Amino acid sequence: MIITSTKNDRVKDLVRLRDRRHRDRGRQFVIEGYREIVRALDAAIPIGTLFICPGLFLGPNEPELIGRVESAGGEIVELAEEPFRKASYRDRPEGLLAVAPQFATNLGSLRLGTTPLLLVAESIEKPGNLGTMLRTADAVGADAVIVADANTDPFNPNVVRASTGTLFTVPLGVASTPDTLTWLRANSVKVAATTPDTDLLLWETDLRGSVAVVVGAEQYGLTDAWLEEADMRIRIPMAGMADSLNAAMAAGVVLFEAVRQRR
Amino acid sequence: MIITSTKNDRVKDLVRLRDRRHRDRGRQFVIEGYREIVRALDAAIPIGTLFICPGLFLGPNEPELIGRVESAGGEIVELAEEPFRKASYRDRPEGLLAVAPQFATNLGSLRLGTTPLLLVAESIEKPGNLGTMLRTADAVGADAVIVADANTDPFNPNVVRASTGTLFTVPLGVASTPDTLTWLRANSVKVAATTPDTDLLLWETDLRGSVAVVVGAEQYGLTDAWLEEADMRIRIPMAGMADSLNAAMAAGVVLFEAVRQRR
Repeated sequence: MIITSTKNDRVKDLVRLRDRRHRDRGRQFVIEGYREIVRALDAAIPIGTLFICPGLFLGPNEPELIGRVESAGGEIVELAEEPFRKASYRDRPEGLLAVAPQFATNLGSLRLGTTPLLLVAESIEKPGNLGTMLRTADAVGADAVIVADANTDPFNPNVVRASTGTLFTVPLGVASTPDTLTWLRANSVKVAATTPDTDLLLWETDLRGSVAVVVGAEQYGLTDAWLEEADMRIRIPMAGMADSLNAAMAAGVVLFEAVRQRR
Repeated sequence: MIITSTKNDRVKDLVRLRDRRHRDRGRQFVIEGYREIVRALDAAIPIGTLFICPGLFLGPNEPELIGRVESAGGEIVELAEEPFRKASYRDRPEGLLAVAPQFATNLGSLRLGTTPLLLVAESIEKPGNLGTMLRTADAVGADAVIVADANTDPFNPNVVRASTGTLFTVPLGVASTPDTLTWLRANSVKVAATTPDTDLLLWETDLRGSVAVVVGAEQYGLTDAWLEEADMRIRIPMAGMADSLNAAMAAGVVLFEAVRQRR
């Protein structure tokens, strides 16, 4: 059976998941796109329902993906193009939309290596920035990303998208700033706060030990709670007319410097 | 006189500037937001018209900004909230929308320092990525950004926005790949192409001389035209499950490594 009406209850429920309130109520979220769903399956995310629209498929690999979801116990629901486009978050949908339960993001579920490298993002507002941070944290092999005092829901579909599915590969914690600081101390992780208000340049800092790189919100940077507790305050030198980098860029530049020092 | 109708011709013309065809026809573009317009004025961009909506102003500094536009010979047009919101590109407009002539982006207009550092972006598709690259190029003090085989118009309002106005501070060239290569050779600038298909790690390359860091399009990376002509092919190490960085992030990580080496 193919659902053809945009007023069908399943379609309406799917569309409602754009809204954080609805996502939180059912503890569910949406994963759209081939690459993102493959990464979710690779990470053993238990997909509850896969909505498909075969007329929108881009390649020959979708049947295998559908088979993987079915094997893992997921339900397959076919939508006609109109309801699919209504539910999609993309201008050019690929005909694949999965619904999965939100996974745990408490700090207690994080497992750290012997000399962990972490990224802490305080009060980040833009889903695209959080997604890019996850993608970058994946690239540097970070032990975890922690969202402190979250202003954006990590299960927002634009986080999934900008992360290109690395939301499922990088361990993720969500907590308040005091809880995050307590947890970092308990795990002997040093706090490296990025801020323009220090003389210590990025390249003069030692990022080889257990360290959490901490970046602040897009507009206002880090709050005093982080700056006062920091073991290191580090500055990315700015040579231009503008006074700041994109928040995800700042995180990436510091994380890659940590990788360089750790080689 | 305040324009109150969304059907007013001035408002219609303004809205049409969203469309590249209309921007190109009149060689004009839109600059929205306080910070962006200040940077345009600082860079002596001759603003033709400033559309204002005082009810949306966020702070006390707008009258000074309006005075600067008037002193430079710009026209001030007041819009009621409805037409202003219609013309705005933002969810939360700040009541300031400027229209200015597009500036020259031919390679011949670029002036290089003695040991220039450039960024070349080939066929970038997303305005947000190009804007972030400009912002990052500003931060590292790059001599210029060159868009080769442009897939996105640098005068797209989302480039202006993501660049936070650094579109006006970083010298910008737009050209074909062959013309860009010829120009780089003529200026004795080495080509450092970023690609996953090389063994040379970022940190093993010498980026201290005259160099152009070249990054490819979001989905497919650099074309052979660049890879075959490159003086260096450099790889950013990837430790994670995903196979690539965001294109702007890749540019930023290499540019900041160049800055580190050049100190």
